[in-house]
Amino acid sequence: MTCDDTPGDTDIDALSELADRVGVQKVVTDPDILRSYSRDMAPIPAAGTPAAVLRATSTEDVVAAMTWASSYGVVVVPRGAGTGLSGGANALDGCLVVSLEAMTRVRWIDPVNRVAEVEAGVVNADLGRAVAEHGLFYPPDPGSFEVSTIGGNLATNAGGMRCVKYGVTRASTLGLEVVLADGSVLRTGGRTRKNVAGLDLTSLFVGSEGTLGIITAGIMQLQPAPPRPPVTFAAAFDTLAEAGAAVGAILESGTTPSVLELIDHATINAIEDYRSMGLERDWSALLIGQSDGENAVADVEAMVALCAGAGFVTHTEDPAEGEQLMQARRLAGTATAEAGPSITEDVSVPRGSLVAMIDAIAALSEEFGIRVATVGHAGDGNLHPVLMLDRLDDDALSHALVLAERIAAHAVELGGTVTGEHGVGMLKTGWVRDQLGQTSIDVHRRIKAALDPAGLLNPGRGF
Amino acid sequence: MTCDDTPGDTDIDALSELADRVGVQKVVTDPDILRSYSRDMAPIPAAGTPAAVLRATSTEDVVAAMTWASSYGVVVVPRGAGTGLSGGANALDGCLVVSLEAMTRVRWIDPVNRVAEVEAGVVNADLGRAVAEHGLFYPPDPGSFEVSTIGGNLATNAGGMRCVKYGVTRASTLGLEVVLADGSVLRTGGRTRKNVAGLDLTSLFVGSEGTLGIITAGIMQLQPAPPRPPVTFAAAFDTLAEAGAAVGAILESGTTPSVLELIDHATINAIEDYRSMGLERDWSALLIGQSDGENAVADVEAMVALCAGAGFVTHTEDPAEGEQLMQARRLAGTATAEAGPSITEDVSVPRGSLVAMIDAIAALSEEFGIRVATVGHAGDGNLHPVLMLDRLDDDALSHALVLAERIAAHAVELGGTVTGEHGVGMLKTGWVRDQLGQTSIDVHRRIKAALDPAGLLNPGRGF
Repeated sequence: MTCDDTPGDTDIDALSELADRVGVQKVVTDPDILRSYSRDMAPIPAAGTPAAVLRATSTEDVVAAMTWASSYGVVVVPRGAGTGLSGGANALDGCLVVSLEAMTRVRWIDPVNRVAEVEAGVVNADLGRAVAEHGLFYPPDPGSFEVSTIGGNLATNAGGMRCVKYGVTRASTLGLEVVLADGSVLRTGGRTRKNVAGLDLTSLFVGSEGTLGIITAGIMQLQPAPPRPPVTFAAAFDTLAEAGAAVGAILESGTTPSVLELIDHATINAIEDYRSMGLERDWSALLIGQSDGENAVADVEAMVALCAGAGFVTHTEDPAEGEQLMQARRLAGTATAEAGPSITEDVSVPRGSLVAMIDAIAALSEEFGIRVATVGHAGDGNLHPVLMLDRLDDDALSHALVLAERIAAHAVELGGTVTGEHGVGMLKTGWVRDQLGQTSIDVHRRIKAALDPAGLLNPGRGF
Repeated sequence: MTCDDTPGDTDIDALSELADRVGVQKVVTDPDILRSYSRDMAPIPAAGTPAAVLRATSTEDVVAAMTWASSYGVVVVPRGAGTGLSGGANALDGCLVVSLEAMTRVRWIDPVNRVAEVEAGVVNADLGRAVAEHGLFYPPDPGSFEVSTIGGNLATNAGGMRCVKYGVTRASTLGLEVVLADGSVLRTGGRTRKNVAGLDLTSLFVGSEGTLGIITAGIMQLQPAPPRPPVTFAAAFDTLAEAGAAVGAILESGTTPSVLELIDHATINAIEDYRSMGLERDWSALLIGQSDGENAVADVEAMVALCAGAGFVTHTEDPAEGEQLMQARRLAGTATAEAGPSITEDVSVPRGSLVAMIDAIAALSEEFGIRVATVGHAGDGNLHPVLMLDRLDDDALSHALVLAERIAAHAVELGGTVTGEHGVGMLKTGWVRDQLGQTSIDVHRRIKAALDPAGLLNPGRGF
């Protein structure tokens, strides 16, 4: 059975063998259920129909799956909650989808060393709640944190709003448990903060999008809970350039915001269309920031003072009021998605090039006649231009994809990257090859061939 | 020509060809000079005699060297300043040593984005001075920072005293320029803070000890200069356990020291033997800490208050006085080295196991009848037990090596690692294999074979 074959009798026999190994109730072949496992949240890339889905409940199940897949040459697509935005978890025809969402154990929490070992299916927010009981805090917070899993966060090296202070998922990862293509179990890293024993395999697998192995658990670094609830500010500007200048001034001041987010005019209106959050529809840009340190009040006052030219500024120590401002930002993704068909980009540029990138997006938007709503982790130079389409037919789509590629190429010209936190998936393999160049792609392929010689693990994704 | 052959006529022809490509003045064959390039600062592992040393002054020279080495099958040992402590830069007989120490250009400094691109031969402290002119700061500070190079720091993922706050070299690395085994030039990463385009090759090469490629330049993340000079404290204890408890209390308090170092009784005396620094010879342990943040004074006062049971405590805002306390700590390495033959270990344990590790070292020291002076980056759980030997004959050495291995094995039992920041080199390949296990070693070897199929790059080192 390969990805290209239509499943036949042999496949049914092979699937029975898998079911015998892991338990028949974990192997799903019902077509309706298979359909729900066929794609992630990226609207564009093609999705195939898997031969089956394995709902793994243990590392042993994943080992059994890879041993089985290796012996039959079956392609495997690993999957967490399916909240990816690049098609990295989209099924391939006839493949086995290995879903990790039922591996939901927090294996242990070590409060003294502020470390926890967490299975791949643990939801990000659930980990946050579990460690909060020990006065601890897990910083990475992708937009999907209430539903996405640590395994998916690790496989894509997910970012989020707090990364400007605490770094991306990799920065909170001390070690991994990974099932390799041949079914062997690799343990990387450990519980120590410093470790140079051998190659940094932890980093190699974080962000590898299921192409080198299946991450079944992570050893995650926790932080002490911040000393106080965050203080929040919002500043509205008449021009995007003024908002960008305020971001630059805040970052150059040496203050460390724990959140620094930018919302443009189109996004403000999409949010208000979706749910009234009290934003003014004529604002050109809204900056929302937080500080969660000892000096949070003074930090936020300093940041507010740097928002020169803001037409409206507010800040609050009240956690509920702050949360409401953050909620407006969090609604951006849903609001633009609900407004109609859209393509979400994920470019990242050196922070000093933020305004140049925003200007370029505006110019390209006009040139292509496609509305672009941009929201982003301004403090990290990471922007999500959302291409808002009137329709999703072939012509509109190919026109939009050319714009998307032009935006990505411009980010690369500015010294940036075609993906800051969403990953390459299926959507950006061409772009990433242009960005990285042939030597790098050759190295990627050599490493892939070394660890997955038969090419069974999420082939064609990631690079 | 291979590593095992005695250089002969062919080799002289081959070396002439290399000299023709890079310029004859860069290819050194004088035996006295070769000897000075034959080993790093680890006293134990064997060092061979290179056929030649290439003093590269550009990436093109390194490309020429690897193209040449590939065509003749010559083993290559890359080398920075030679301050390594694990034998990772020791020559192999008949090999080409590629010295990067003459690649000393800071290619550019981007103050807006706080990034600099730095050639491998730039001395760590020189980078610090160059960026200080822009109000910036390069945090990683291995003990050798006044002489060791960024290339060597990158190749070993070097640590240092400020890592407790700012992380190891990897945490300050955004990208690399690497010459691969076949002479092609790989560029990884870039100038952005977030980047998930493809595999994290930057992390794969950082800490790879010259086994996968030769790092010729790094794109380094800088920090804003701290807002004030650090405030420093020192606390002396009657027992190591009390000092360890103070470390635990400080870390659990959520305060972030920028330095938190432990010096034991034997080291205090070695320092005083070497140069009188005003330390009391009967102290059992000395803790030295700093804070460099906005709240440095309050932070240090809080840390001092947590040093329960300290017989002597001092703290100072005066930079010169603080520097003198730090100087005592910095002398530890030289002082123990000057005291006679010694073996420096580099174990790292979960921070909560610091006291358990110190107790185990004391018990093993007594069991083996070998004096052990321990100094360490207590805030990171990273300890350097220095085995102080009376003599360095074969019997004494093999007895000491058994002790060293027992200490390393105990660190692993506590969930730690046999090397926190010095690297594996030649010294710890056996230990690291025990620590990592066969599956991990297999993955290491597959990656090595994929990137260096002929095994020319620093063979036998690193894992």
